[in-house]
Formats: sequence, structure tokens, C-alpha cells
Amino acid sequence: MFSIGSKEDNKNYELDLKGVNNLRGLALDMIVNAGSGHGGIILSAAPIIYTLYKYHMNLDFNNLNYINRDRFILSAGHSVPLLYGIDYFLELLELDDLKKLRKIDSKTPGHPELGITPLVEFTSGALGQGVGTSVGCAIASKYLKEKTNNLINNYTYVLCGDGELEEGITYESLAIAGTLKLNNLIVLVDCNNVTLDSNLNDSSCENLKMRFEAINFNVIECDDSVKNINESLELAHKSDKPTVILVKTIMGLYSKYEGTNKAHGMVPDSEDLLNIKEKLEIHEASFTVNNEVISEFKKEVEERSNKHLKEFNNKYQELEDKSLVDKLINHEVSYNLNEIDIFSEEKSLRENSKDLLNKIANDFELLIGGSCDLSSSCKTYLENLGDFKENNYKGRNIYFGIREHAAGAITNGMALSGLRPFVSTFLAFSDYMRASIRESAIMKLPVLYIFTHDSITVGPDGPLHHPIEQLPSLELIPNLKVYRPFDLNELIGSYIDIFKNNNPACLVLPRDSKNISAYTKSSEVANGIYEVIRNDTDDFINLIANGEELGIVLKVSKNLKEMGIDNKVLSIPCKKNVSNIKDLLNNQRTIAITLANPVYFYDITNEVIGINDFGKSGSKEELLDFFGFSEEKLVTQILELLKK
Amino acid sequence: MFSIGSKEDNKNYELDLKGVNNLRGLALDMIVNAGSGHGGIILSAAPIIYTLYKYHMNLDFNNLNYINRDRFILSAGHSVPLLYGIDYFLELLELDDLKKLRKIDSKTPGHPELGITPLVEFTSGALGQGVGTSVGCAIASKYLKEKTNNLINNYTYVLCGDGELEEGITYESLAIAGTLKLNNLIVLVDCNNVTLDSNLNDSSCENLKMRFEAINFNVIECDDSVKNINESLELAHKSDKPTVILVKTIMGLYSKYEGTNKAHGMVPDSEDLLNIKEKLEIHEASFTVNNEVISEFKKEVEERSNKHLKEFNNKYQELEDKSLVDKLINHEVSYNLNEIDIFSEEKSLRENSKDLLNKIANDFELLIGGSCDLSSSCKTYLENLGDFKENNYKGRNIYFGIREHAAGAITNGMALSGLRPFVSTFLAFSDYMRASIRESAIMKLPVLYIFTHDSITVGPDGPLHHPIEQLPSLELIPNLKVYRPFDLNELIGSYIDIFKNNNPACLVLPRDSKNISAYTKSSEVANGIYEVIRNDTDDFINLIANGEELGIVLKVSKNLKEMGIDNKVLSIPCKKNVSNIKDLLNNQRTIAITLANPVYFYDITNEVIGINDFGKSGSKEELLDFFGFSEEKLVTQILELLKK
Repeated sequence: MFSIGSKEDNKNYELDLKGVNNLRGLALDMIVNAGSGHGGIILSAAPIIYTLYKYHMNLDFNNLNYINRDRFILSAGHSVPLLYGIDYFLELLELDDLKKLRKIDSKTPGHPELGITPLVEFTSGALGQGVGTSVGCAIASKYLKEKTNNLINNYTYVLCGDGELEEGITYESLAIAGTLKLNNLIVLVDCNNVTLDSNLNDSSCENLKMRFEAINFNVIECDDSVKNINESLELAHKSDKPTVILVKTIMGLYSKYEGTNKAHGMVPDSEDLLNIKEKLEIHEASFTVNNEVISEFKKEVEERSNKHLKEFNNKYQELEDKSLVDKLINHEVSYNLNEIDIFSEEKSLRENSKDLLNKIANDFELLIGGSCDLSSSCKTYLENLGDFKENNYKGRNIYFGIREHAAGAITNGMALSGLRPFVSTFLAFSDYMRASIRESAIMKLPVLYIFTHDSITVGPDGPLHHPIEQLPSLELIPNLKVYRPFDLNELIGSYIDIFKNNNPACLVLPRDSKNISAYTKSSEVANGIYEVIRNDTDDFINLIANGEELGIVLKVSKNLKEMGIDNKVLSIPCKKNVSNIKDLLNNQRTIAITLANPVYFYDITNEVIGINDFGKSGSKEELLDFFGFSEEKLVTQILELLKK
Repeated sequence: MFSIGSKEDNKNYELDLKGVNNLRGLALDMIVNAGSGHGGIILSAAPIIYTLYKYHMNLDFNNLNYINRDRFILSAGHSVPLLYGIDYFLELLELDDLKKLRKIDSKTPGHPELGITPLVEFTSGALGQGVGTSVGCAIASKYLKEKTNNLINNYTYVLCGDGELEEGITYESLAIAGTLKLNNLIVLVDCNNVTLDSNLNDSSCENLKMRFEAINFNVIECDDSVKNINESLELAHKSDKPTVILVKTIMGLYSKYEGTNKAHGMVPDSEDLLNIKEKLEIHEASFTVNNEVISEFKKEVEERSNKHLKEFNNKYQELEDKSLVDKLINHEVSYNLNEIDIFSEEKSLRENSKDLLNKIANDFELLIGGSCDLSSSCKTYLENLGDFKENNYKGRNIYFGIREHAAGAITNGMALSGLRPFVSTFLAFSDYMRASIRESAIMKLPVLYIFTHDSITVGPDGPLHHPIEQLPSLELIPNLKVYRPFDLNELIGSYIDIFKNNNPACLVLPRDSKNISAYTKSSEVANGIYEVIRNDTDDFINLIANGEELGIVLKVSKNLKEMGIDNKVLSIPCKKNVSNIKDLLNNQRTIAITLANPVYFYDITNEVIGINDFGKSGSKEELLDFFGFSEEKLVTQILELLKK
């Protein structure tokens, strides 16, 4: 244990101990009142959150969305009653809110939820996500600092438990932070040495100090006194590297389960509560906090924050070009894509996508992103816009490395900080980042996921590279719009619709299709589905498809017509944009065709030709034939269906 | 760079260099002939695979499934032409097979696929999976060593690239290996310092030596000579900890892209191929390997392996109780569950599940598993069977820690080594391990995933703890059977069906339902769907549900009957077991009810009452009401549907 040394300062640490204990007591009152919660971390992590807010966080009480505020990401979401307690200390929540903890439609849900409670910056509760997202906030801050002549300049703090550091996403994302030398990132670890099931060392022998030094972190260890945590934070601010502060705490301090895993989900009974409060030296009634604690806490935060705000406002006034900052202030993250004259029919969809992305990026500074080591395959490199590196934070291309999960969480953080980020990988590997995509969707963040190599047409790389279930699986996620354009027209339409709106979106592209059709329309993407080939007779069948397979279906449609089977072809470039398709289907028999699992279209019709097995290694043509999607075999499949 | 020192031995390293270069040339011939592949790693990793097989791997040429063979997991699946080359050296593949690389239905797919090619132990190509799975093989070997009086005693080797080590799953799984001191695990890293997009240091500043020391690994660094790799492996065998050998190699050695990321997916053109082969001193025609190389290689492997086999057979003969070993030899991993008298109607489904799991485990030694730090919540702890720990490899409970992704990959490795493993976490967090579940499904491994807390009925922990899309999303994965029992009868039926068969399976359970119905039948789980409440009139509606919501539907059914709406209730405890439901539905109107995304049932009916949004924090009762699933609101919803 490295001690910070006793620096002289004028802080009233005695009052702070009382404050920390009041915070503990208040949070315990909340979970006792709610009947469920996580008493263990409430008792261990209280001094960390208390110290951070009292002595470091810069906020604007009149505008909690103040763009240069420090960010605190509570990755250990189950400790949220502590944050609600801080809200109460700062008069941002009422006692009544605290009493509604974990009740429906309260301001105090069981885990932090973005948009519901003051000071909550992130919806957490799935471990590791917040750590990844904090790296994104720090990246965004570094980028915006460069773009705003140092006006934006803040810290990102994240709190997690030492058990949470077992999650792979924490290694992935913090390795990126270390590589990028993000010294505006401070990771606070509640080292209670206990997990839900047992002692941490039953599942981990890891030397945390060595782990973090291996990835270029400044490592500080301290005990759980406000003084030492505070001095650790001050040291962290002087570092040229990201800092991790390993705070030695005691899980379930003073409770009958102190120091054991039984404290994790503990809600103390009345006897234990009394006992704990006695040891905490709290003698007030439930839900009562010492007046001096509260007034001193608020005063300290306000005075510091006001000074900070004044500096910001002065700098803002001096700023010559305010356009970017004003966009951030107004949270304008949409972009109007027009004058599209850059495409080439000779190029693949992926290559045209690259040109479109580059066109937007050149004009729209909030667009920044990177790839999970596949920018050259997914065609998402922003040419001539530089690489985001330790010595070039204005660069626009981020090297996430082969770290899909972190990339998802990091782009979430970038979006939370006002950017419009993108990330690319192969569709098959979207599985690796699924938990982070879910976070984008829950928080409705404008993250663009570019997933290429979208079906068995990937060819010889085989089943692990062949998405079958990924397309319908992404479609299942609420709020997430999945675009799967067939050709260049629909690709343009997808980009227009994605950047016009602020939804989390997946753009799904094939490996090497280069279609362009005279019948497709970019303007129809916004409607989700439309007729590509009309049919004016009364008796016809509908053929529905999207993406690369629409090209096969268009040929099949012609074949069927020649056989006397009238049909209409509908393209469905974005299922979530569809509002009503009844008129389009006109009560006619409808057959949908997809290279994905047929479930993808069962909400539209019960006649779906799809693939309900894994892919295999072979050429694209061999595979299309094997799975029954050659033009000839598809005609046969449809004729078979029609016989039924 | 740590040099191994020059130990005297009688190996013909000069011939070995020729052998390595022949292997490189042969693998290049394969990808040139195929027209695609990954030339970079072929040129860098060849000496590693060559040395490992020539001097260390113990095989049985007459029985490649020999249970005590050493395992080689090729995690860097894109280097597979090298392994096919070894197959050729050992006369396990013909030249003709090599010429069919990447063609459909060949023995030589683009990435390794289990069951298709000799020596391939694992379907790889999604980075990081093989590393995780190798830890599972090593765990299985340690366990079986204890259970077979040291008869089973082998090494697991895994090859990955240094870029692949960016994947979070590699940190998670290797931290487990270090904690468990699995000294039978040797990780070979092809340190070529290049990834697909760029130099490794663009995305990673990590000090690998420090990283591995932090997790209790023996770290060896060496160059890419056969001599040094061999001596490193010998050193590794003496370690009491798992070993990582960091082999310094050169990506795309001798090619025009040598040492750069452009070498990654390189297929050399004819000029470059000539040039490379000249530097490799290969003067033979394509697809030709020096005779002496091949004969010496095969001789060395055979002599060593035969000695190994002889020892094994002697020990086997001496073994008193051969039953477990014979089960392994015959790959008998099913278990006949009967005499079920242990359940209690007073307990929740989770608790009864625990009793069933414990009952099986007590009788069935191949069953071993663990939890992602949620054994006490998922109720999957095996009582009195000990913990699998460094000093107790016969323990049956593995502490995976909060490492879902690794847990999935590790259980895959355990299943590959003949065990019947299980792993548990909350259903919402199945997203974290999805890529590993996909591997179970592709390889059809008998892994049991126990996912509890299966819907919004989790209550106050909020949306990140509420599975909505996870149930249909898992159902989308081919080969994976998802069981969602309603009550104790169906729970028993699920366990019977799961252990009778050898499919990868998910058992999905609610948080605290404790239903038992007089109408449900355990025997019907094998049929997937069945009538719980019959209706003998001709005019009725079908109500379909599973899991906890079936309880609500049973009440609703009664309500509807009282209103004069005849109905039949069908339970569907395992969708993938359903073969034909037409007769059951009897052409009547069918309404399905689910707390998951309605897509879950659209393959059965287009009238589904489900949840197409994220959950929220609140009590179970509040949430059921909010989402329209209280008894009263569900009746209303059904009546509304029937009006249409």
C-alpha cells in the first residue's frame, strides 16, 4: 500500500468523515425502504463518490448538460443510491425521490438510467460497460479540446469495483486509453476484494498494479480516507498518462457481513442497520443528514464550479468561431447530406460507402470514428483527416484494435459527449459488441455501426465469418435501426436517413456487391419499404427482399413473369422505418427471401425462404447454389411454395 | 529479447529450417492456388507449428480421437494452411486435398472446422475464441488427470497472434488459467507486431511480458528459430504455471510486403512467389516437399507418439476402475435422469433446478461447471463437490469470475475434451458470451447454459437486467436448443431431455416463480409443444406461451372461458424440439403471449402479444401491469385482438 503522504491543506476532513458516513446511512435508508439493493458497495464506495464530488467535479447547477462539465460514469451501477445521495446533498433530488428508490416511474431507478436523474451520465448495470464508455468520453474531450482552442477541457472519472475489472471489456478499453495517453481519464476502483459469489482471489490472482502499468497507466494506491482519495485525485491530475486509483475499501463495512461476499446484495435488517449506524456514529432519524455536512458540501461544489464556469464563459466569449461549440451546446448532431455526385457505379457498395462517409466527414466535424482493425476491409478510413493518436488528438481515425466490445462502448461515450461516432467491423463479429450495442439502443445514442461482409456471400472464410442470425438478431434490439441497402441508390438513401436522424443505426453491407438499379430510389429508404417493380394486375405475388439478395430476386421476378406468374418486388432497406405495409402488400400472397435466418421476415409473412443453418467454406457462387439461392434454384423454391 | 541459451542436443536443425521453409512454400502454394488466403501469417508462424508438431505433440495416428492426445488449438484460424501442411507431412491429407483449399465440401476449408480435417480440434476464425477454449481443454485435462489416477495427462497448446491478444476474451480466459495455475497450458504467440490495418503499436502500447506476469504466467520470449522455439517449449514443460511463449516473428517474411500490414491478407503474385521461394531456398515445383523433410518429420512424431501410447496403454491396463475412461473413449456424454423424488413445491424453479443439477452431478462425473460470479443467484453451485482450484483439480465448481465471454469459450473447451460442462449467468448477460455460444452451436458441443432472471419479472434492477430480445435472439442460433420450462414438471422434463441428448442447450429460468401445475407434463418437453388445457369444441382459439407467463395465460384462459370464449392453452417449453404443430393448432386462430420481443413467436402465428421495448425499474407486479401482462390487462389485450 502506497501512502500519499500528509500534505497540509485547510480541508475539514473531520466533517468529511461525518459526511461520508451520512451518505452511507442515507443510501442504506434508501435500500431498506425499497426492500432491495446492494448494501455492500454502499458501505465501501461512499468515500470515493463523496470525495470526487465534493473536491473535484465541476458542474453547472443551472444547466446540468453544460458541455464542459466533468463526467462521472458510474460503471458500478448497483452503487447508485450513493449518487442519489449526492443529488440530495446538492439539492438536485428531494427526500421524497429517495424514498421512491426502485419504484416504477420514480427518479430513482434501481440502476442509473440516463435522462431520468440529475448527475446520471450513463445507463449502467451491465458490468464493464461504463469503464469502456468512460474511455469514449475522454477521447471526445481530447478531440473537442483540439477543435475548440482548449475551451472544452474536462475530466472523465469512472467508478468500478475490482471484481468488475475481470470483464474483458475493461482490459480492451483501458488498453486503448493507455495507448492514447488519455490523461483526462481517471479510473477509481473500489478494491473491496469481494465479488458476489466469493472472495475476489477465488477467481482472480491478478496483480492490478502490474496489469495497469503494462498498459501505460499511472497507478496510485490509497486507503479509503477522504484525505488520501483527494490527494490521489490531485496527483492524478498531474499525470501525463491516464490514472487508475486503487482505493482499498471494505465491502459491507460495519455490517454483520463485513468483508464477505454475503454483503454484496445485503439489505440490512433493523438490528444490523442500528448497529451499522452506531458504528458510523449516525444518531439522527432515517433519511436525515447533518445540516453542516450538506451546506459545506454544496458550498464547496458551487464555489469551485462557479469559478470554473466563469472561466469557461470568458473563454467562450473570446472564441472567434463559435459554430462548433454552439452545435455542442444545442446538441445538434444531425447532418444534412446533399449534393451527392461522388459515387461511382464501378465501385462496390463498400467503396461507395467509404466515399460517402468521407464526404460527410470532410464537412461535419462531429463525425469521428474508427474500426476494429478492419478499416481497410470495411472501407471506413477517413482519408487525409489524420489518425487520432497520442500526439494528434484532432485526428479523425481511431485505431480501436481487435477490440469490438470496447469499440462499441467507446463510441457510446463519444456520443454521450456530443460527437457523432462510427465504428466498423464484419457483421459476424457484431456478436462481440452486442452488449454495447444494446447500451446505444437503451440510451438512443447516435452511434453508427458499419457492418460489412453481411452473409454467406463472404465466401471461403467459412461459417464463423458468415452472418446468418446476426441480421435478425440486431433487428430485435429496440430503438436500433438496421439499414441494409441493395444498391447505390439505397446506400445514399441510407446515409441521408441515418444522418438526418439521431438514432443508433447499423449500416449492413455485402462484401463485394456493386449493384445499381434503374428502379431503386434513395428517397424511399426513409419509408422503410417500397415497390421496386410494380405490378398492375389484380392477381400477383409479392416478393420481398433487401440487400444483395434483392439483385437475385429481381432476376427471379423476371423469370417468374415469363412463366406467367405476375409479381411485385418490394425492397425493404430499413425495417424499423416501416409504418404500415398493408396497402403495399394489397392482401396478396407474399414471399420473402433472405440469406439470413428466415425469422428475419416472419413478422411480415409466414412464407420466407431463408437459411436456417450455419454457412460453410466455398466460393460465393458455390454457396449461393448450395443454399438454394442461385437464380435457378430460387425460382424452383418459389414454384414449390406456390404449389402448396 | 531473452535468449534461451545453446543447449546441446542431437536435433538436425538444418533440416528443420528446410522443413519450415517447405511448410511455408506449401502453404503459399495452397493460397495461390485457391486465389485467396492469408499469406502474412503463413510466412511468420510456420516455425511455431512445425516445431510444436515435430518435437512435442503426442498423437495416435490410428485414432485421432485418442483421449490422451495433446491438444493444439489453432486460434489464429487464418493460418490454417500451415496445419493442413502438417497434415500432409503426416500423410493425413493428400496433395489433392491441399489443392482444394477454400473450395466447397473439401477437407480444407478456409478456416479450421471441427470434424472435417484431421488434427483440427476447434472451429476457429473469430479471434480470441481459441485462446479461451484452450483454457477449457487444460481445465478438463487437469480434472480428468485427478479422476483417472494420472492416466489422462497431456498438454494443451494454443497459437494466436499478438494482435489477437487485444480481444477481451483472451485477458479473461488467461487470467483464469493463471489463477488456476494450469501448467499444462502453453500459449504460443506469433509476435509479428502487425495487424490487418496497421502496426500493432498503433492500437496497443501493451507490455506483453508484464501483462502475463500480472496474471501468474511463466513468460518466455524467443526468436523464430526451431531450436529456440523447441527449447522454450521444453522450459515451458518444467513450469508450475501456465506458460506464454512470445515468439518474435516477421509478418509476410521475404514477401514484398514483409513486416507490414499489407502482408496480412496477401496472396503473392507469381513474381513475388518466385522471389519468396528463392529466399526460402525452395527450388522444387509447386506442391512439392523435400522427401527427407517429410520422412524425418513423420518418423519423429511417430516414434515419440508410439512411446507415449505404449505408456498410456500400460497404465490403462493397470487401472482398476476403467468406467470413466471407457466413457471418454466412447464419447458417452449423455446421462439418463430418473428416480426424480427430490423436488419441492415450496421452492422456486431456480432452487429446484439446483437440486436437479446437484442430483445429476453426484452421479455423473463428467458434469462440471461454474458460474460467472452468479452461482448463488442462478443456483448452480454443486454442494459438497468441492471447488476447482489450484490445489484441488477434482473440484467440480469453477469460479469463472465476472467473465462471461471466457466462461462460454472455456466450457466449449471442456466439452471438446469429453466433459459435459455447464455455465450460469443472468439471461440479460448472455449477450456478453454470444460469440462463444455460437461456437458451441457450430461445433454441436454439449454445453449447458443456465440463464436465470429471464424477463422483466426481474423487477427493480431495471432495463439492463431485463432480457427482452435475448430469448428470441438465442433461438435464432442454429443447433442451439433453448428450454424455457413453466413449472417444476417442465423443469424436470427439460433436464431429462437436455442430458439425454448432446446438443448445446440453454435452460432459461425466471427469477422467482415457483409454479407447479396439475396439467403440465415433463414427458412433453421432448415434443417441444403440447396441450396444457384441452378444448373439445370445434370453435376455439389457441393460446401459446412458455415460461413464467404461461401461469398468467392459464388464469386468462379461465377468464376467457367464463366469458364464453373457448380456448386451448399450449405450452412450448422447447421450440427447437417442435416438429409439426399443425395438428395441435387445428387451423384455429392462434394468439401467442410472451414477455420477450414478439418476434419470438412470429414463426408460429402473426398474432403475438409481446414487449417491443426495453424494460424499466419497478416491482414485478408494477412492471407486469405497465407492460400489459397483468391478468386483467392481458384479457383486455386478447379481447382487442379478437375484435379485429
